[in-house]
Amino acid sequence: MITAYEFINNKRRGLEHTAADIEWFVKEYVNGAIPDYQAAAWLMAVCFNGMTDCETCTLTMAMARSGDMFNPSLGKFCVDKHSTGGVGDKVTLFAAPVCASCGVYVPKMSGRGLGHTGGTIDKLESIPGFKTALDYDKFISVIKEAGFAVAGQTGTLVPADKKLYALRDATATVESIPLICSSIMSKKLATGADGIVLDVKVGSGAFMKNEESAEELARAMLRVAELAGKKCTAVLTDMDKPLGRTVGNSIEVVEAIEALKGNSPEDFRDIAYRISAELLGLAGYGTPEKCFEAVEEAVTSGRALDAFRKMIELQGGDPRVCDDYSLMGKAKYSMEIFAEKDGYINGIACEETGVCALLLGAGRRTKEDSIDMTAGIKLDVTVGDKVNKGDRIAVLYTSGNSDMQEIADRFSKAFSYCDNSVIKRKNVIKILRNS
Amino acid sequence: MITAYEFINNKRRGLEHTAADIEWFVKEYVNGAIPDYQAAAWLMAVCFNGMTDCETCTLTMAMARSGDMFNPSLGKFCVDKHSTGGVGDKVTLFAAPVCASCGVYVPKMSGRGLGHTGGTIDKLESIPGFKTALDYDKFISVIKEAGFAVAGQTGTLVPADKKLYALRDATATVESIPLICSSIMSKKLATGADGIVLDVKVGSGAFMKNEESAEELARAMLRVAELAGKKCTAVLTDMDKPLGRTVGNSIEVVEAIEALKGNSPEDFRDIAYRISAELLGLAGYGTPEKCFEAVEEAVTSGRALDAFRKMIELQGGDPRVCDDYSLMGKAKYSMEIFAEKDGYINGIACEETGVCALLLGAGRRTKEDSIDMTAGIKLDVTVGDKVNKGDRIAVLYTSGNSDMQEIADRFSKAFSYCDNSVIKRKNVIKILRNS
Repeated sequence: MITAYEFINNKRRGLEHTAADIEWFVKEYVNGAIPDYQAAAWLMAVCFNGMTDCETCTLTMAMARSGDMFNPSLGKFCVDKHSTGGVGDKVTLFAAPVCASCGVYVPKMSGRGLGHTGGTIDKLESIPGFKTALDYDKFISVIKEAGFAVAGQTGTLVPADKKLYALRDATATVESIPLICSSIMSKKLATGADGIVLDVKVGSGAFMKNEESAEELARAMLRVAELAGKKCTAVLTDMDKPLGRTVGNSIEVVEAIEALKGNSPEDFRDIAYRISAELLGLAGYGTPEKCFEAVEEAVTSGRALDAFRKMIELQGGDPRVCDDYSLMGKAKYSMEIFAEKDGYINGIACEETGVCALLLGAGRRTKEDSIDMTAGIKLDVTVGDKVNKGDRIAVLYTSGNSDMQEIADRFSKAFSYCDNSVIKRKNVIKILRNS
Repeated sequence: MITAYEFINNKRRGLEHTAADIEWFVKEYVNGAIPDYQAAAWLMAVCFNGMTDCETCTLTMAMARSGDMFNPSLGKFCVDKHSTGGVGDKVTLFAAPVCASCGVYVPKMSGRGLGHTGGTIDKLESIPGFKTALDYDKFISVIKEAGFAVAGQTGTLVPADKKLYALRDATATVESIPLICSSIMSKKLATGADGIVLDVKVGSGAFMKNEESAEELARAMLRVAELAGKKCTAVLTDMDKPLGRTVGNSIEVVEAIEALKGNSPEDFRDIAYRISAELLGLAGYGTPEKCFEAVEEAVTSGRALDAFRKMIELQGGDPRVCDDYSLMGKAKYSMEIFAEKDGYINGIACEETGVCALLLGAGRRTKEDSIDMTAGIKLDVTVGDKVNKGDRIAVLYTSGNSDMQEIADRFSKAFSYCDNSVIKRKNVIKILRNS
């Protein structure tokens, strides 16, 4: 029988843990027999010595099994999607109804936003009456009727990750590929989807700042999915600038609805259509080209928007918001931002955009903060656009007490300009498939 | 103002801490504002990324200052000696009275033994009536009268080390040169000696298994001493076999008294005389040769033994033990061990000897265990000696319930034999001086 001391010491010395030892550690840590200080020492040793694929997979599975395993018998292929977190990321609001309208179930359990990145649950709650706290039966019935449902994660899902993540957050042990991988994938495995698409964000606004580290994380997650017997695709997408033209809550829902109506800016279209197509691909829709066509058809036919309407209605929301955006309420205050010079937009500092939206009231600094659903930032331009000095380039919204002038001054500096036209980064950087 | 998170993250990223940050960390950890789990993560990061001399010195000083600083104004040069821990190590019982009899004060605060290594305090308590719990005034008065005193460490001495050491012991973060160094040196600096001799044990029975790691630790401690303005010498000594011919408590005191009478086995003489000479050297006794002669003179004149008698008397013990060893009591049971073959003793497994002595009752498995003062092992031979099959090579002693036959069988295996004469290891391996 191993002791916690030996377990830590093995990792410190660079030895490979046995599966039994890892399972023992997760169980004992979750039930409180192993104290935080021993787990913290082990986490730091993992940051330095890493984990093998086999260790990472065992850890992920042990974490997934630490609480309830959600395993709906819905009789249809179920897909799930995960984003590593970005600014203006409303892809789920598009991809889920698209898949649902194509006959693929999407049982989506989603988290709330924290810091400069938003959360799908928060965005949907800007729809009047919309409920994200669904019990199991309700969740299943919404999926069966609308093809998808979006619920908040329950407390019984992956308690090991809750406990380990809080500890990592306090001990500077977040930045470790196997630990990030096990945190994400344990939740994906616990929610029981048959196929998973991972949207791995890359750039200044993302956790992974460069393509190499993003690909390393993506490949680690793909290997875990493979060992766990799940179909999985990772899509590396750009997060060097905000995604789409809105950052906030109600304004992001409006942008997603517009996308479901066929109106999206190029970057959002590239990424959201591709991720939707990959989800359909996992469900057996055929070649990437065929999948992409199916997505386009779901939009142009209006079926995707119908699925979205249906889901809103079943989760207690007012589906008329899809046609009358004013029903979502309007910010009390707004302030326009203007280009400071002639030229091309060379960059829009992504994390800074998220922070400014947060300061306007669109996000949470701590878990206890409440959100101003009407707050946020609407961009008139994107990277590569030509502007003249004085052109409006963005509008800030808030209904709270934020000092708008201060935030406006700060946000103006998020834009950089150049004299010559800009070579744009690719929106979809790379696609990695394990099947 | 730094946060604990940033402090951990800096070390994780390989940055050098500022002195202010280290002092802040020690203060906040000792007062409980920084929880164990954050300290544990930092300790593990130190194990991987190390510390600079400057960081180690700042940590050591901050730890030393975390409790009472003992700073006696005795008007004479004070020396202190530290051993990194060994089996049969009774050097302090020889060196302290030798120095005292040469006019050099030795205010010795000492710890108890744990595991396979013994403690000076425990050994002295085998003398009837002897007290090691002295208050400050008593400690000072014994030093002034006998030239030295040996007291147990008080709870107010270096609380940072107590707390950090317990945490390291539970999180597999003991094996780190800067952490070992700060733990030892913080206690030495807090006890206020002017000169310090470090006996760094090397070999299978020591914490440092090889000369390289022992020298690395020694050099780290010398640098800290230098930065703290203390004269310091490190003596690397052999701990591949037990030191001297006895391992236990009362039997070690007897061996020390015999040494003070001029009767010691070669290995003990080499090491104890050299360490005593180095202590005198720090106090200004001149060249190493002159110091060595002074040690010999202290023994042959009987002055060193007189100092030992005086100290015993002042600390409540019966000084007649120096002449009548039976006053220390006798073990109820003994068992002889015989050579299993003809040949030369090639090795006596050192840690195993300590463990067998522990099993006989001479040591503690946990802090709460009590000690059988009469228990221990007396060796008739040492490494290099020629033996014939059936020669007595050792005697085991106990007054407790230990299964002596089982321990005897186990201890017999601690001896290895060879056919040809053995090249002995040096007893004093290396001397490193910072002054």
